[in-house]
Amino acid sequence: MDLVANVLLAAGASPAMIHSIEEIPDFTPKAHALYINVGTLTPDWLPAIKLAVQVANENKKPWVLDPVAAGASGFRLKACLELLRTNPTVVRGNASEIMALFKGSEDSNSKGVDSIHESTDAVEAAKSLAQISGSIVAVSGAVDIVTDGQRVVGAKNGVSMLQKITATGCSVTALIAAFVAIDPSRAFEATVSALSVFGVASEIGMDMAKGPASLRMHLIDSLYGLDQATVLHRVNISVI
Amino acid sequence: MDLVANVLLAAGASPAMIHSIEEIPDFTPKAHALYINVGTLTPDWLPAIKLAVQVANENKKPWVLDPVAAGASGFRLKACLELLRTNPTVVRGNASEIMALFKGSEDSNSKGVDSIHESTDAVEAAKSLAQISGSIVAVSGAVDIVTDGQRVVGAKNGVSMLQKITATGCSVTALIAAFVAIDPSRAFEATVSALSVFGVASEIGMDMAKGPASLRMHLIDSLYGLDQATVLHRVNISVI
Amino acid sequence: MDLVANVLLAAGASPAMIHSIEEIPDFTPKAHALYINVGTLTPDWLPAIKLAVQVANENKKPWVLDPVAAGASGFRLKACLELLRTNPTVVRGNASEIMALFKGSEDSNSKGVDSIHESTDAVEAAKSLAQISGSIVAVSGAVDIVTDGQRVVGAKNGVSMLQKITATGCSVTALIAAFVAIDPSRAFEATVSALSVFGVASEIGMDMAKGPASLRMHLIDSLYGLDQATVLHRVNISVI
Repeated sequence: MDLVANVLLAAGASPAMIHSIEEIPDFTPKAHALYINVGTLTPDWLPAIKLAVQVANENKKPWVLDPVAAGASGFRLKACLELLRTNPTVVRGNASEIMALFKGSEDSNSKGVDSIHESTDAVEAAKSLAQISGSIVAVSGAVDIVTDGQRVVGAKNGVSMLQKITATGCSVTALIAAFVAIDPSRAFEATVSALSVFGVASEIGMDMAKGPASLRMHLIDSLYGLDQATVLHRVNISVI
Repeated sequence: MDLVANVLLAAGASPAMIHSIEEIPDFTPKAHALYINVGTLTPDWLPAIKLAVQVANENKKPWVLDPVAAGASGFRLKACLELLRTNPTVVRGNASEIMALFKGSEDSNSKGVDSIHESTDAVEAAKSLAQISGSIVAVSGAVDIVTDGQRVVGAKNGVSMLQKITATGCSVTALIAAFVAIDPSRAFEATVSALSVFGVASEIGMDMAKGPASLRMHLIDSLYGLDQATVLHRVNISVI
Repeated sequence: MDLVANVLLAAGASPAMIHSIEEIPDFTPKAHALYINVGTLTPDWLPAIKLAVQVANENKKPWVLDPVAAGASGFRLKACLELLRTNPTVVRGNASEIMALFKGSEDSNSKGVDSIHESTDAVEAAKSLAQISGSIVAVSGAVDIVTDGQRVVGAKNGVSMLQKITATGCSVTALIAAFVAIDPSRAFEATVSALSVFGVASEIGMDMAKGPASLRMHLIDSLYGLDQATVLHRVNISVI
């Protein structure tokens, strides 16, 4: 939550972390987007998660799902598959997570949040998942893939060292939620943009980094200082 | 908790984060001050919070309340108002939070922890709240306000970029608790001092910062390295 | 968890933080080592902790216990003593924690996670604890002590400023778990190596640090960039 909140603040968003089911009816309608992350999921959080999704849907608020380590356990996969049926605007995971959701079974070899497939292998799974769920599906990897089930775009910005920093995947999903909040009708473009902006910030940060911890710091600083010209100059997107 | 604990360690305090009601009867009497923060509040934490406050009061230990996002939900506001009635030594919030407590109702527009009022607007609310509660009330903002209901002091040190780092408000409240622990009979002076020291550390850190993440790092380093001469040279306090 | 996970990633390990008892039967057998840390312990976590230990033991997976602030409360000490009876491969704590476990009573003066004894005072307690538990016991301090109940080795790398950063003790215990995972039959050597490598990384980081927060960053960067030659050149171990 710490990195996620700092990434959102650096990007100009206003994060609040709400866990309690008692607060959701009051708070969720005030939010411009809802972000559900199943990292460190426990059963007592599920009712709050499901109510938050219901309130977001009733209030036409976009919401984004990060199926962290979806294949790590049957309990977690089941929870993610249930959430997937409640119309997330965007789903962002690594290849292992997206494939686990696609297979909808425990036969994933996912040991956790690390990606053990190349994201490109997951393109077909992502397209099918997008068609089934009606969600925008994004797959992080050497090349980030975004699809609505028809269109497929590759976002190539980013650095591999991000995999050596915990919660960078969670953070880019949060950034997607912040971008989608601006114009939910353009969730596909917002998702590609968020992935690209985060990737560009990581590239600029990498120029100053001596390792994962300094990259983490420079990434946030770079995101805070990023201007449109720099993004447009560096962005590397292609239709696949 | 991560930033809060590191700020306390950098300042020379010895933090311990205790959540379990089972530990409070043994642990709380050993502490020199208690800090209650309602961020990410859930109902199962409330009994532990209330017992910790009771034990602190019985043992004449000072305790400090941070009403994080007090206006975010009726549940949270009710919990904060109950805690306010149990004699906190100090209450520190942003203008939205202090006004939400003052109004004692849900008509606050607080979307969360971000301050949406200028702290100066909250001076009257803070004075009244201090008179009602008998607590020292501090309001963070461009100018930090501290009042015991009669006296009002403005502490002007600090940098606006702190608002782009999560938990800086929580951290300065923790620092207030550490300062109040030194001499609970001088909680007003301790609160002004803690706000000023944190503000000075942030100003020194800002000289080296390139963005919110490097400010966070330099803030803690500066707090660790701060000496009395530097504080006395930079401190900017005025009676209002 | 943030620092612990980033330390493990920097060292080349693949951490996953699992809290839910529902996930343990599926997930724990996939892990190469289990790390139990009782910081912020609550009663509802105990069944998951105990099941994870049982599954690890049944699957012949090494597991490491960090008895954080073992003496802080009777509840916590009882939980640590119960865990100690379930055959941890390694136990790593500071002198206060190891002595609290040894005394097996609440007469410890531990105020929390800070060490209030010199680790050398704890050598005899550590040897006895190792003999009683059959575990490798490590005591962090100015000199880190590792014993299997017969052999005692002192690992002298490290810097005192680590005590001003929260979770550095938790992180080195996690690193021990990662090292022990390589060859559980050589847990003694793995424990000494992990403590030395973390200590060397902190020394290299200290050369660049201006305070605790920059040390935290440089420590992780240094750990990530560490090579065998540097470790062999700097390592300072002696038989006691």
